[in-house]
Amino acid sequence: MNYLTYLPVWAKLTPSQQDALTTSASLRTFRKNAVLHNGSADCTGLFLVLSGQLRAFTISEDGREITLYRLFERDICLFSASCIMNSIQFDITVMAEKDTEVLVIPSETYKAIMEMSAPLANYTNEVMASRFSDVMWLIDQVLWKSFDQRLAEFLLNEAAIEGTDTLKITHETIGKHLGNPREVVTRMLNYFAGEGLIALSRGTIKILDEGRLARIVDK
Amino acid sequence: MNYLTYLPVWAKLTPSQQDALTTSASLRTFRKNAVLHNGSADCTGLFLVLSGQLRAFTISEDGREITLYRLFERDICLFSASCIMNSIQFDITVMAEKDTEVLVIPSETYKAIMEMSAPLANYTNEVMASRFSDVMWLIDQVLWKSFDQRLAEFLLNEAAIEGTDTLKITHETIGKHLGNPREVVTRMLNYFAGEGLIALSRGTIKILDEGRLARIVDK
Repeated sequence: MNYLTYLPVWAKLTPSQQDALTTSASLRTFRKNAVLHNGSADCTGLFLVLSGQLRAFTISEDGREITLYRLFERDICLFSASCIMNSIQFDITVMAEKDTEVLVIPSETYKAIMEMSAPLANYTNEVMASRFSDVMWLIDQVLWKSFDQRLAEFLLNEAAIEGTDTLKITHETIGKHLGNPREVVTRMLNYFAGEGLIALSRGTIKILDEGRLARIVDK
Repeated sequence: MNYLTYLPVWAKLTPSQQDALTTSASLRTFRKNAVLHNGSADCTGLFLVLSGQLRAFTISEDGREITLYRLFERDICLFSASCIMNSIQFDITVMAEKDTEVLVIPSETYKAIMEMSAPLANYTNEVMASRFSDVMWLIDQVLWKSFDQRLAEFLLNEAAIEGTDTLKITHETIGKHLGNPREVVTRMLNYFAGEGLIALSRGTIKILDEGRLARIVDK
């Protein structure tokens, strides 16, 4: 099975471009919580997600985190190959949220083909625009939304991703997704629990009233 | 004078691509405070700035603003032509901060050439990566910096752009740049004035102690 056919642009590449990608790409697996890419120090290559789930986030000087976006099966991680473009002047970290299998495309191979191939360059444009849209959504959230709205939306989104209303997640991890200290998360979760929206127990959060959580998001 | 030669990629286009751009591009002038592009409703075209200064910003549902980036001479405004890419799922507004002359390149012309031309597609990638870097800087600012740091940096940056230490700007306008209410701006400016960092008078802010403002930014 050639996973490179997951690339929507695959059929528009020349046979020699396809060969170059096939020859250079390699399969890698990462355990949950493994770091795949760390800032600008490494230009690891592009990751094509075959299974599992990745989290891309940014870290403040004093170690606080906020999630920028998630990547799922058939998504491509561009910024782990930031050296393919001079104008990418920011660092992100990419971590496996579940055991994850990826196809790694070396940066130099991808860059060389992109410089010649309008289809691959335009595909790359679309991928970047899609991540840009994610980050613009995040700006909207952190600037204009209150924390109860953001937390309610996060819980509903996690339940949708995991396909369950019982989430196994710590308050600290939620804080790293949302860019807030753990205590702030705990205080709001306790408030939600007091209102009967969720039930808290050791290491889990059970959603009791999805409708009211959704109304908090839209308030 | 063919201003299209301002495009770094100009010489890599074919003669017929150059002709298509030259024939379709048109000069437009905008007065200070004119809106060049407003959200996703219009797909105005790409703006190549010939003179003046543009401000790209986002607006909350209830009308609050924050500046995303500025565009100066020879910069290109891509998101005013957001229809050239399907994955651009966000709205920005572009306003003239000074009387501004731009060359407008129609979206459909640009898109048709970009689909065929690897050089133009790669140039577009670099432009988008550059704006992405601006927005990532903004995320870093709003998430992790305190308001005094952001305001001090804004004042120093404005002084550098305008080439003067006496800024003609209202507290409300600063609030729209930084995404904060006017009262918050006024309170911090009064604090800065009390500390001898700036002097306030009707409609102007004079920077008195650049060194201490810079130390606030880096604290």
